[in-house]
Amino acid sequence: MNNLYEKSIELHKQNGGKLELKSKVPLLNKDDLSLAYTPGVAGVCLAISDNKDLASVYTLKKNTVAIISDGTAILGLGDLGPLAAIPVMEGKAAIFKEFGGVDAFPICLDTKDTEEIIKTIKLIAPVFGGINLEDISAPRCFEIEERLRKELDIPVMHDDQWGAATVTLAALINSLKIVDVDKSEAIVVISGVGAAGVATGRLLHSYGITKTIFCDSKGIITSKRENLTKEKIELLNGSTIEEKEGGLETAIKNANVFIGLSKPNVLSVDMVKSMAPKPIIFALANPNPEITPEKALEGGAYVIATGRSDYPNQINNSLVFPGAFKAMLDNKIPQFENKIFITVAEALALVVENPTPQRVIPSMFDAGVKDAVYNAVSSLK
Amino acid sequence: MNNLYEKSIELHKQNGGKLELKSKVPLLNKDDLSLAYTPGVAGVCLAISDNKDLASVYTLKKNTVAIISDGTAILGLGDLGPLAAIPVMEGKAAIFKEFGGVDAFPICLDTKDTEEIIKTIKLIAPVFGGINLEDISAPRCFEIEERLRKELDIPVMHDDQWGAATVTLAALINSLKIVDVDKSEAIVVISGVGAAGVATGRLLHSYGITKTIFCDSKGIITSKRENLTKEKIELLNGSTIEEKEGGLETAIKNANVFIGLSKPNVLSVDMVKSMAPKPIIFALANPNPEITPEKALEGGAYVIATGRSDYPNQINNSLVFPGAFKAMLDNKIPQFENKIFITVAEALALVVENPTPQRVIPSMFDAGVKDAVYNAVSSLK
Repeated sequence: MNNLYEKSIELHKQNGGKLELKSKVPLLNKDDLSLAYTPGVAGVCLAISDNKDLASVYTLKKNTVAIISDGTAILGLGDLGPLAAIPVMEGKAAIFKEFGGVDAFPICLDTKDTEEIIKTIKLIAPVFGGINLEDISAPRCFEIEERLRKELDIPVMHDDQWGAATVTLAALINSLKIVDVDKSEAIVVISGVGAAGVATGRLLHSYGITKTIFCDSKGIITSKRENLTKEKIELLNGSTIEEKEGGLETAIKNANVFIGLSKPNVLSVDMVKSMAPKPIIFALANPNPEITPEKALEGGAYVIATGRSDYPNQINNSLVFPGAFKAMLDNKIPQFENKIFITVAEALALVVENPTPQRVIPSMFDAGVKDAVYNAVSSLK
Repeated sequence: MNNLYEKSIELHKQNGGKLELKSKVPLLNKDDLSLAYTPGVAGVCLAISDNKDLASVYTLKKNTVAIISDGTAILGLGDLGPLAAIPVMEGKAAIFKEFGGVDAFPICLDTKDTEEIIKTIKLIAPVFGGINLEDISAPRCFEIEERLRKELDIPVMHDDQWGAATVTLAALINSLKIVDVDKSEAIVVISGVGAAGVATGRLLHSYGITKTIFCDSKGIITSKRENLTKEKIELLNGSTIEEKEGGLETAIKNANVFIGLSKPNVLSVDMVKSMAPKPIIFALANPNPEITPEKALEGGAYVIATGRSDYPNQINNSLVFPGAFKAMLDNKIPQFENKIFITVAEALALVVENPTPQRVIPSMFDAGVKDAVYNAVSSLK
C-alpha cells in the first residue's frame, strides 16, 4: 500500500491536483470576447433575470454538480479536515466527468456545524444543478441531506448513503436470484448503522426485504435498548423479523445474507458456518473487509462481495452517481427519492446477463452501465 | 446591440454555458483509478492531513480561484440576482484560463448580507488558492474585501475596484508622459465614487497623484458635506488640492485629467473646453461613456480612453487579473496590497513602447501583457 500511496502522491504533485476548468467557447479575438463576455453577455444576463429557469439552459448550472464534504469521514480514514478531503473530491469529480459526462466541482467546507453546512450549501447553490454530499459523518449527514432536499430546488444526494445502498441492493437482487431465495423470505443481517448502513436498511425495506437484523458496536439493535437514534428506531420499526437479543454471532445464525458496512474482521469463519445454506457475504468495510474472501469461503460462503477492486464483485458507488446525476440534470427531475434508487438497482442487476457467484454486479468499466443507470432514472421523469 | 445579445444567447444555449471541468489524469482502467482515487488517494489525504501546506501542492487549490458575486452590480445592469450573474462569472473564468492559465470557478451567492457573504466565503475557502470578488455593489464590497483579506490566508481582490484602478493608473502614467505633466502636478477629477472610483482614488494617492477632486451625484465631495461614508472621508483626507464647492463643471476647470467611473453623458463639450491644455479624458462608464469620444474630441481632448473595445485605449480589467492571480498563486504571495497594483500599472504602461494619444494602454490580445503583469507581481515575492 505504501508504494501505491507514493505513486499517487507523485501523480498529484506532478499535475498540481487532478481538475482543470476549460472554456467551451473560443476566446481568440475581440469578436469572440464580445459574445462570451461583454457586451453580448448582458443579453444572457437579462434573459435569465426575466426567466430564472433559463439559468439551467444558458449556464454551467445545466450540467454542473457540487461535490461537498466537510472532511469528517474521508474514506475509511475519519475526520482529517477539509483540506485533506480535497483529493478524494477531485477524484470523484474526475469520475463524474469520465463516466457520466457531468461537470463536478469540489467544495470542502471549513465547518462541521450542521446548520452552517446547510446554510452555506443553500447560499452557494445558484450555480449548481445538483448537490452530491460526500464523506460527511453520521448522524449529521442524515439531517443535512433531509433538510437540503426540502429547502433546495435541485437534487441532493449523499453518496455514502445512497450510492452504497443502491449498489448493495443491485448485488443482492442477483445474489438472491442465484440462491433462489425470495426477497420476502431473505433474512439479512446488516452490521454497521452509519451513513451507508442506515440508507441500505431504508432501501431494502422500501424494496420489500424486511426480514432485517441490524447490529452496531453494542450488538443487535432491539426495542429494549435505550437512547437509540431516530434512524435506528425507524429501521427497527421497518423490520418484520422477530427480535433477538445478543451480538452479531446471535444475529447471524440462519441468516441468508450478511451485509457489513462497519469495520474489519468482525465476522468469523464460525459465524459464516452458522448461516442458512449458501450464505451471501457482502463484506464492504474498506480497505479491510469484515471478513476476508478467503476466510468467508472457508466458512462456506456462496456469494462474496467486497468494496475492493482486487476481488470479484466490487460494490462500488461509482456505478451509480455519474449516470444518475446526468439523468437527473438532463430530465430536470426535481429530487432524489427511494423509488429512483430501487429502479437503478434493478437496472444495474440486469446489466449482468447471467449472474454467477463470481459476478453478481457489473464493473464500472463494463459497457452498458452508464446507459442502464441513465435510462433507469430517465424512465421516472 | 440586440443582434449581439441574440448571438450571445445562441452561443450560450448551444454550449449549455461556457465552462467545463476536466480531469488532468487518465481514468481508463483500474490502475488509473487506484492512483487518482481509492485506495492510492488515501496517501495524498494523509500527507495533507500531516502538513496542510501540501494542499497547495497536491490539489486544485494550487491553481484555482473562486470568482464570487452576489449579483448586485452585474456589468452596468445593476442588481439582477445570483442566477443572472452566472454568465458574466463564467466569462471571467474563461478569460482567467485563456489569458492567465488560472483555473477559476464561479460562485454566485444567494444573499446580499455582508456578514453572510463573508462567512460563506470563509467556509468554502479551503479548495481555493485565491478569491476574486466580482460585481458586488458598494459600499458592501469595501468591507467584504477588507475583512476577507484579514480573515483568510489566501489572496482576495475585488476586481471591480482594483482591476479598474490598476488599468486606469497604467493608462494615466502613459498619458501624463505624453502631455508632459508630472504626477505631483496633475489635477485629476474623478467622477463616481463607487467601487472603482474609491479604489482608483486610493491607488492614485498611493502612487503620488494627490491633486484629486472627487464628484458624486451630489457634486464635489467636500469636508463640509454631511453623512459622508468613511471611504469618501478617506479620499478627501488623501487629497492635497484646495477644496472647491460646486458641481462637476466647477471641479473640471483647469484640471488635466477627467476619470469617469459614473454614468453616461455627465461630461459636456464645454466642460472639456474648460480644462487645462491637452485634456486627458477617461470616460469609462459602460457601455455608454460619460462623454462620447467624438464629443470629447470636439471639446479638444488630447487623450481619450473608454471601457469599450470599439474605440482606441480600452480600459479593460482583463489586462490585470489573469496574470496577477497567476503570479500570486505561483509565488504564494499571501495578500494583495496597493504596492502590487502600482507595480503592475507601471509594468503595463511600459508594454506600450512609444505611447501616443491613440495608444496609452495595450490591448489584452497584445503579446507581452501577461508576462509583464506576471513578472511585475512575481518581483514582489
